[in-house]
Amino acid sequence: MVSRPGSGQGRNQEAVRRHNLGTLLRHVHGAGRLSRAELTATMGLNRSTIGALVGELEALGLCETSETPTERGTGARPAAGRPSAGVQLAEGGPYVLAVDLGVETAQVARVGLGGEVAARVHLEFGEAREPWKVATAVATLVRQVLEDADAKAPLVGIGIGVPGLVRRADGLVRLAPNLGWHDVSFGEILLAALGLETPMPLALGNDADLAVLAEHRRGAAIGVDDVIYLSGNVGVGAGILSGGHPFEGAAGFAGEVGHLNADPEGRECHCGSRGCWETQVGGEAIAAALGLPASQVPRLAEVLPTLEGHAEALRPIARDLGRGLANLVNAFNPQLLVLGGFLGPVLTLCREEVLEGLASRALPAALEGVSVAPPGLGRDSVLLGAAEVALEPLFRDPEAALGAALVDVRTRLVG
Amino acid sequence: MVSRPGSGQGRNQEAVRRHNLGTLLRHVHGAGRLSRAELTATMGLNRSTIGALVGELEALGLCETSETPTERGTGARPAAGRPSAGVQLAEGGPYVLAVDLGVETAQVARVGLGGEVAARVHLEFGEAREPWKVATAVATLVRQVLEDADAKAPLVGIGIGVPGLVRRADGLVRLAPNLGWHDVSFGEILLAALGLETPMPLALGNDADLAVLAEHRRGAAIGVDDVIYLSGNVGVGAGILSGGHPFEGAAGFAGEVGHLNADPEGRECHCGSRGCWETQVGGEAIAAALGLPASQVPRLAEVLPTLEGHAEALRPIARDLGRGLANLVNAFNPQLLVLGGFLGPVLTLCREEVLEGLASRALPAALEGVSVAPPGLGRDSVLLGAAEVALEPLFRDPEAALGAALVDVRTRLVG
Repeated sequence: MVSRPGSGQGRNQEAVRRHNLGTLLRHVHGAGRLSRAELTATMGLNRSTIGALVGELEALGLCETSETPTERGTGARPAAGRPSAGVQLAEGGPYVLAVDLGVETAQVARVGLGGEVAARVHLEFGEAREPWKVATAVATLVRQVLEDADAKAPLVGIGIGVPGLVRRADGLVRLAPNLGWHDVSFGEILLAALGLETPMPLALGNDADLAVLAEHRRGAAIGVDDVIYLSGNVGVGAGILSGGHPFEGAAGFAGEVGHLNADPEGRECHCGSRGCWETQVGGEAIAAALGLPASQVPRLAEVLPTLEGHAEALRPIARDLGRGLANLVNAFNPQLLVLGGFLGPVLTLCREEVLEGLASRALPAALEGVSVAPPGLGRDSVLLGAAEVALEPLFRDPEAALGAALVDVRTRLVG
Repeated sequence: MVSRPGSGQGRNQEAVRRHNLGTLLRHVHGAGRLSRAELTATMGLNRSTIGALVGELEALGLCETSETPTERGTGARPAAGRPSAGVQLAEGGPYVLAVDLGVETAQVARVGLGGEVAARVHLEFGEAREPWKVATAVATLVRQVLEDADAKAPLVGIGIGVPGLVRRADGLVRLAPNLGWHDVSFGEILLAALGLETPMPLALGNDADLAVLAEHRRGAAIGVDDVIYLSGNVGVGAGILSGGHPFEGAAGFAGEVGHLNADPEGRECHCGSRGCWETQVGGEAIAAALGLPASQVPRLAEVLPTLEGHAEALRPIARDLGRGLANLVNAFNPQLLVLGGFLGPVLTLCREEVLEGLASRALPAALEGVSVAPPGLGRDSVLLGAAEVALEPLFRDPEAALGAALVDVRTRLVG
């Protein structure tokens, strides 16, 4: 069969080639280094096809081959023992900007393929939560993190994790209650604050939705496809993976489990309802139980591990946390619950109460084989998840993503 | 490029052909009749490929082509107006058996491609809930429904909806609380009761999981990809579609939303916990509110619509139903909630209270655009969903499914 360029058949083969190119890059990105034999087995393609794809990725400056792993190639999952001809990520390749937007703080990192953090900066914007002020602060961080970037490396895009409901269709922040944001097009505001003349590809997501991606790719959930990441960041929300794929809901708002009702007679919630789970196990409840001032609420993830002798005061909250986890087990039947933000330290301090609360309400069949764990990426789950979504265009179509990437952005932004 | 049979390339092309064959059949099954132009557009293949695939399906006795739609071809979605050369399902094609197992009743149907019910029977097994007794009763229904079947038509398999937790890996019924079943391998028991010498392909599923499939394919959720079907069948459970795909959880137990906690101080639940949503809106709570005897609980879906002047007594339950739906909206962000079983009549009688309860607790952004509706398939959602999963092998690989189908089963089972 002869394939004519421009014919249906030719277009189809071209789409397959681009798909395979991105998929191969995704595998090397995930593993750090893979032998050609591993790539052949994983992708179900023959050696000559793999060889041709690797050649194209080399030409694009994305991968390099070597007989022995270099320092760089031994990253995420070292190929132990016998060194063999392998494919690894290229030096000086493309990078993305990752933003973890908290309630009073922002963190920005420059992240390369393989999830390698090349630089990171952060600041506290405190009570200055107006979207334009936050965007200005983030733009400042972006300039800082670009200062020592390779001027020739292409910037693929920027990924931003937001503690709120992000509409999938257009990235509008419908609601970020603890920032006081309603219907904020933060992406546009940030582009304006950066003052670029060309648009930068931009991906916004709910913080927990991004965190679960990062934990799945290189954290506590490697190889586990049914996962819930529960974020404790003033409020409580969930990022859900089902069969390895994001469960986002119709508009992208799934996982607002902090607003599952836990007690019809409970305290008023910021959302306007009463007795939401968040009123029991959220930052304000924890601070109140520990006698901490409200100003400490956005810093609980850092503060909790430094406290001693406070486990006693946390026990009732830990039990309510476990009982609420039972709702997640009954509704979603996950294999793994990752407790992020301030919920990680609550688990560490009061593991028994959490598990007791969980067992008291979960259906035994659904509870079988469920693990509860802190994040494998510490406090970087959201940041690295933001990098993953920003890198995603490279894995869908490397050539197109590089074509849309910004070059020489350091000079333009930093001078 | 020359493709050699047996080579990697040849095997790959063969897999693509089988996939396309099944996908084309799935489209015709869903639509009833499609023109070649519609198939070309829907499947993204050229006319000659479509023509070849249609020819193969004709040779397999699955489809037929005609210039004008026949009676049969105008089934699910009639191609109105201009009759054009079209592909429709063949007469005398394969069929499946569908079983809707209730708590005191069983219904069995013979269902063909297109979801056409050719015959149906049911019986009440009442309190005789031991698995072997239920299986024996179902086997009797199977024989009845086969009586006037075409002896030459192939039987592709049997699909069974169970009101309980069904393990996806092997179809084990882990728990069907209202049948009193724990770890029952009902499929094996039913095969034994049928006394066949050759195994019949068999698919078991949770009733709500099957119902949501049927509602999506030909009920209230056509064209809606983020759907929750809530079953009211003594207990309460959910079948969930996300982006058009089943959300089943790690082991197949997702959607046990009847056991989301609704009131920590609430009534004891059969599951061993306290205050589950099911204790507020389940069959026992409804019967108690209406002063009906416990014996009526398994019949509520039929009884409720016949009652008059009882809406008043149902209002508090309708409000709790709506409040619980808010939990589903916050957790899953669906577009459509389909209320099945006895929950359909509750919605009809007290729509205002249901919607009021829902609005009082759902996050406004997640609630936008959410509809609440009774099933489009009346009381047949589970039955037709069971047929869909039994037909599924035909859509994955028609040749393989026909190869595994039973022929002449009527003679062997009915005599």
